[in-house]
Amino acid sequence: MQITKTISETREALATSGSHKKIGFVPTMGALHKGHLSLVEKCHLESDFTVVSIYLNPAQFGPQEDLNRYPRNLERDIDLLRSYDADLIFTPDDVQMYPEGYCTWVKVEGLSDILCGASRPGHFRGVATIVLKLIHIINPNLMFMGMKDYQQIIVLEKMIQDLNLETKIVRCPIIRESDGLAISSRNAYLGPEERQRATCLINALKTAQKMVNDGCLDSKILISEAENIIRESDGKIDYIKIVDSSTLQELAEVKSNAKMLLAVYIGNTRLIDNIELLS
Amino acid sequence: MQITKTISETREALATSGSHKKIGFVPTMGALHKGHLSLVEKCHLESDFTVVSIYLNPAQFGPQEDLNRYPRNLERDIDLLRSYDADLIFTPDDVQMYPEGYCTWVKVEGLSDILCGASRPGHFRGVATIVLKLIHIINPNLMFMGMKDYQQIIVLEKMIQDLNLETKIVRCPIIRESDGLAISSRNAYLGPEERQRATCLINALKTAQKMVNDGCLDSKILISEAENIIRESDGKIDYIKIVDSSTLQELAEVKSNAKMLLAVYIGNTRLIDNIELLS
Repeated sequence: MQITKTISETREALATSGSHKKIGFVPTMGALHKGHLSLVEKCHLESDFTVVSIYLNPAQFGPQEDLNRYPRNLERDIDLLRSYDADLIFTPDDVQMYPEGYCTWVKVEGLSDILCGASRPGHFRGVATIVLKLIHIINPNLMFMGMKDYQQIIVLEKMIQDLNLETKIVRCPIIRESDGLAISSRNAYLGPEERQRATCLINALKTAQKMVNDGCLDSKILISEAENIIRESDGKIDYIKIVDSSTLQELAEVKSNAKMLLAVYIGNTRLIDNIELLS
Repeated sequence: MQITKTISETREALATSGSHKKIGFVPTMGALHKGHLSLVEKCHLESDFTVVSIYLNPAQFGPQEDLNRYPRNLERDIDLLRSYDADLIFTPDDVQMYPEGYCTWVKVEGLSDILCGASRPGHFRGVATIVLKLIHIINPNLMFMGMKDYQQIIVLEKMIQDLNLETKIVRCPIIRESDGLAISSRNAYLGPEERQRATCLINALKTAQKMVNDGCLDSKILISEAENIIRESDGKIDYIKIVDSSTLQELAEVKSNAKMLLAVYIGNTRLIDNIELLS
């Protein structure tokens, strides 16, 4: 396993070891958990050369957000990736990725301004830009991403399509704790009592899904029931929406390909999750 | 010589004929003139496989600009390129480049908002986006661009650097008519009397250059003299600036690496030109 810190080292490592191989890529912000590791595992199965980037991208955090307290543990991350047989770990610093005078940004308009983008202005511009840069550096055939950040996948798939890139995103299932909480680096912020309350997200989603299975297709009713469940656990709702899972446009009535997406504050911690309502 | 209209045909042609070759690329909007052909010639000399794109990119024209009357002559362009031994001509239509629902844009901030960008909002966003798409489709080692559109080169070099692309821009000299007018597709808009007056651009630039050679380094004085020359020919000044040729920042005093850049209306036709004042 090689570890590179600079772009030129990374290109060199790829030219030496990765050329003519099917390159799989898992972009991460470090603080690796079972969710990330499931991506690495799948990447390893479906590619010939597994690249993982660890870079806490400041451009996707707002000025009031949690960049400074975001969990970091590079040595542990590297040990984990070694045990999962990653071939190359790219751990650049800010000077590599955003040198002085940096000023180029890519934005997927519309899709970046709704849902999480409405609450986090600039977030998806930061995500799209860093992923475009990483694609240019690593040139992966496949990029593995978890469906917890569902809007992120949609934004990046649209960027890849619009900009005529050849990388394909492999959508990977949400990995959950035994009580259903979607695994996230931000779960580390939760105190013990908050951790218990945080199950309201999956409970709200599952309740909506069950109601759909029982024949209720009215988005207002479904959202209202989900809101009740979140509020019973003292969660503060950022948004709960039912959308078409390709376009992210809101649906008044559930139809095939519909998802419920939500973002909820438990204490000061903003958590997101989503579920397919009708396949 | 191959001619392709779709992105997939183009990728296929490149995979078949261009693989493992040094690919040179000349992006154009058609209506080819001696300036373009000098780029193709240089491309042919410095690469193993010469790709020329002909695409009148609507995204780089403002709503009040000259997209509709911009000269077009695809058959003549193709004949010319055949005689210049281009290997591949890519002539996509708008549906190929901006299919319905297109929404991804790249912007080089700051550099895109000054000089021509101040008069043409959105212009360099359109240029950067189409060139990024073309780079992704063609994957050239070298891209040949004329220095008449000097700000365009600076914007694209910055985009390439910031986004970690590996294409190198080859800056090519401005090609001029015998009386010094920089060759441009837009010269076709000039009536005979306007065509004569249009030499005021190069006259203003050459006068400033001569004054610098004679020891005058004060930008105000140099610009004022250039303004007089333009006004004597009844030109309407959009801007005349003296800038550092790497950063495009304005200089109060000429130093090495300084250029004078100008944009002038002759009648309704907007012309641009530039000159190095001190090497």
